[in-house]
Amino acid sequence: MTLELPDWMEERPWVETVSLELPLPGLHDNTADWDRLERALEQGGFSPVLVSPRCLSGFIASLRAERFRVSAVLGQTPWGWELIEVGPYEHDAPVLGLAVDLGTSQLVFYLVDLRSRRLLSRISAPNPQIPLGEDILQRILFARHQENRTTLQRSLITAFNRSVGQMIEERDLPPSRVFAVAVCGNPAMSHFFLGLDPSNLCKEPYIPSANRFPLHHAADLDLDIHPRAPVYVFPNVGSYFGGDLLAGILAAGIHRSEDLSILVDVGTNAEVVLGNRDWLIACAGAAGPALEGGVVERGMMASPGAIDRVRIDGRTWEPSFHVLGDGKPRGICGSGLIDLVAEMFRAGILTIQGKINVQAGSPRVIVTDDGPAYIVAHREETEDGRDLVVTEVDVGIFLKSKAAMYTILNVITRKVGVTFQDLKHFYVAGAFGNRIDPEMAIRIGMLPDLPPDTFHGLGNTAGKGAVMLLLDRSLFGRIEEIRKRITYVELNVNLELMNEFRGALFLPHTDPRLFPSVRIPQRDCRTDESGPFHGALP
Amino acid sequence: MTLELPDWMEERPWVETVSLELPLPGLHDNTADWDRLERALEQGGFSPVLVSPRCLSGFIASLRAERFRVSAVLGQTPWGWELIEVGPYEHDAPVLGLAVDLGTSQLVFYLVDLRSRRLLSRISAPNPQIPLGEDILQRILFARHQENRTTLQRSLITAFNRSVGQMIEERDLPPSRVFAVAVCGNPAMSHFFLGLDPSNLCKEPYIPSANRFPLHHAADLDLDIHPRAPVYVFPNVGSYFGGDLLAGILAAGIHRSEDLSILVDVGTNAEVVLGNRDWLIACAGAAGPALEGGVVERGMMASPGAIDRVRIDGRTWEPSFHVLGDGKPRGICGSGLIDLVAEMFRAGILTIQGKINVQAGSPRVIVTDDGPAYIVAHREETEDGRDLVVTEVDVGIFLKSKAAMYTILNVITRKVGVTFQDLKHFYVAGAFGNRIDPEMAIRIGMLPDLPPDTFHGLGNTAGKGAVMLLLDRSLFGRIEEIRKRITYVELNVNLELMNEFRGALFLPHTDPRLFPSVRIPQRDCRTDESGPFHGALP
Repeated sequence: MTLELPDWMEERPWVETVSLELPLPGLHDNTADWDRLERALEQGGFSPVLVSPRCLSGFIASLRAERFRVSAVLGQTPWGWELIEVGPYEHDAPVLGLAVDLGTSQLVFYLVDLRSRRLLSRISAPNPQIPLGEDILQRILFARHQENRTTLQRSLITAFNRSVGQMIEERDLPPSRVFAVAVCGNPAMSHFFLGLDPSNLCKEPYIPSANRFPLHHAADLDLDIHPRAPVYVFPNVGSYFGGDLLAGILAAGIHRSEDLSILVDVGTNAEVVLGNRDWLIACAGAAGPALEGGVVERGMMASPGAIDRVRIDGRTWEPSFHVLGDGKPRGICGSGLIDLVAEMFRAGILTIQGKINVQAGSPRVIVTDDGPAYIVAHREETEDGRDLVVTEVDVGIFLKSKAAMYTILNVITRKVGVTFQDLKHFYVAGAFGNRIDPEMAIRIGMLPDLPPDTFHGLGNTAGKGAVMLLLDRSLFGRIEEIRKRITYVELNVNLELMNEFRGALFLPHTDPRLFPSVRIPQRDCRTDESGPFHGALP
Repeated sequence: MTLELPDWMEERPWVETVSLELPLPGLHDNTADWDRLERALEQGGFSPVLVSPRCLSGFIASLRAERFRVSAVLGQTPWGWELIEVGPYEHDAPVLGLAVDLGTSQLVFYLVDLRSRRLLSRISAPNPQIPLGEDILQRILFARHQENRTTLQRSLITAFNRSVGQMIEERDLPPSRVFAVAVCGNPAMSHFFLGLDPSNLCKEPYIPSANRFPLHHAADLDLDIHPRAPVYVFPNVGSYFGGDLLAGILAAGIHRSEDLSILVDVGTNAEVVLGNRDWLIACAGAAGPALEGGVVERGMMASPGAIDRVRIDGRTWEPSFHVLGDGKPRGICGSGLIDLVAEMFRAGILTIQGKINVQAGSPRVIVTDDGPAYIVAHREETEDGRDLVVTEVDVGIFLKSKAAMYTILNVITRKVGVTFQDLKHFYVAGAFGNRIDPEMAIRIGMLPDLPPDTFHGLGNTAGKGAVMLLLDRSLFGRIEEIRKRITYVELNVNLELMNEFRGALFLPHTDPRLFPSVRIPQRDCRTDESGPFHGALP
């Protein structure tokens, strides 16, 4: 199992082991046991050495039991090297680390061998908090009470221990050899994981309990790994900008490129970072849910049963689609919706205003209690035996999301006086980023009209950034530098947005010059254009 | 209650409080709660701020509950300022610290107001480990087993909690306002207090488990004060040279004086430091027990029932003595033994070789099963109804101790190429130091023949040094400097000692030129010299 890592990374893992054969005590070297070990470690470059008071006695006992031939495990902290373990002298015991992406809907765990720098295992699990609150806002409200915060935290810890236990067991590795954990998530998830009160995240003026978190130990959080393993939770930049995106910046390498790049992460919110090695600007806004398949009546997350790709015959208005998991469809996920709206628009089913063309007399277009709708799949074809339709209301909701997305991109670029054409790399994070077809997203005016090879799907940038941290401790410093360098623009209070937003509500936009590559279909006229599925982003 | 502190101390207590009125969060200052507090603390000079992961959530809750008007308590650590407490805004809540001297026979506790820099209370208690081992060696042997180490540690913790609880309660102060603890003791006592294995302290090559101890929190040791109060245990220099003596160096101020000074602490061992602000040399040796009243048949610690001062009529050989507690005598303590031997020598009862003159026909001199002896108190005068005698064997044992003491002083001065006459200050630590009469100690050749005003009894220098640390955090650095600057000479393995030692076994010495002020009595001849009690050292 591999994970492609940038070649600029330093090979300096967060946690190191060192095997020591100490000079034996004697009348001419009567240094105390602990001081002897400390001296050797400091001579080996681990300076200063920190030790937990509760560990001291055990470490000294190991040193004696092993007759001063020991292997030590140390982890870097902001204050020095913390001694995690002192045990028998050995060169090949595994030294493991865990990277964790705490997503609102999914938790992803990466088990990494810090010696061979190999990804040993990756596992994902649905976020166990979903039953406590489908979306993050519900969970934040739920977390107002201390006991509920404990419930939310415990659910994550339990899921952690179950998933990690499974990965470890499958490989017959001892959990006590997991010596480091790097965790990233959005601000709310980070709060939940650490048991912090997230209540003020969701009400003006949107204040997190903490943006920077102290280094924890596994035992503080009841994680079933080495109790002294340090646990690093990526800091937030602001209430809408979490450690997951900081990890994403690392993974995309925006912070070190001469080229101007942009990174977009569509999650609970759309989060955007724009910049290069000299400056970084970030913002986030509530564009997300509909783009990810939420909110819309038959919208769903990208999981088995979701339609993720759609094509429509321009002449017959008959759709063809791809279903995740290859079963019958239950709903439609974000990339499916983008395809659907883009194809409905090209086929003339949707007007520039996003209205469904009910005049054309297609059997695919019906009028429901909720107004005009397009039948994506008939009841015979669906898993639940109900017609899978998308209504004009759904489209309206979706267009607001895509308009918000475009507006965010527009405002942030203008904020720094650049144009879309200045962007050399357009990174789209998340599984979503790997799944959407940029041409479709451009056609509906969600992404700017740039050459297709500008766009890069990065997959789980958050998880990747966390893995990188395990393998390169210099990134602790980078993260702080990035945090300090980022100018965060709070869009929620930016009136400018509203004006931009109105034009972006149209397909693709009220100003077609912004999308020269998009052919605006003739009104009330079916088209015979239709193409094969385009490949997803690489 | 006062404790005289040196005027060179900086008024920078180890633990500080600061009252903060933070700017309220708003859309234009949406820093996270914790980061807001951290920022304010750092602006106030507390940088960097450390926080325990387990405290973070509670501190943030306090901040919110108090509407961003709080008082914070911070303690300095080697890595920065640890945040101990965040509570209601107030200016006059007490900020208390504890200094503890862990003596082999006695524990002394000092309760200090860190704001007013006043000593509020001092209390002492017998070391509760005495039933587990009268002397330190017995306790070290007892501590070979882990469970016994726990017993030894628990006994100290229990005594701590009882004594501190009493002091706190008497003054109606809340234990949770005790925010700092400075502890010093000899290496074995420091090991016992921290639950470390002392086994190797007492066998060649005499290796402590640790010389430097990590900063503990009160909760690590189950101390019933503020759980996050930092607990500093003074480091050792070597296996015979503990934190108590480092504290003593601070208290005597040797490390900052231009003058050459010497500090002698007679405890389980005789510990000696010689030097000035440019250099320090230290050694320790097994001179102690007999000087303190141990080992000798009727020897005892300086406690009620002990004869602590003796005069003998040169003509009649009749003694007069002072008993601690003013009851009947049970035994004789260190200063009493020094007086006794010195007076027996002057009266001609003892020869230069330390033999008892049985020829003179005094009823005070008898021959017991253990050989010749001097009756200090007849059975009618003693508490236990037995004659209180000192035998020639006792004197022999005692002379070995005093010879060891002198030899140590002799060797250490010669080691650095100075003479006794170069010593401007001769500090004698401990209650012992306050009790002995330097003229008597010179007469028996235990202390060098210097003008009496060279000698200063310092009382409990260890406790005083610990109090000083509470009130001046710059001393943390000084202690490390002193540790590094001290050259420690291991006398136990120094053959040179043996040669010096032989001459010092005599009264006062084989070379009388070393003690010009001491008049050598005529052999077999009673003298009519006798004087009043001399005052003890100031």
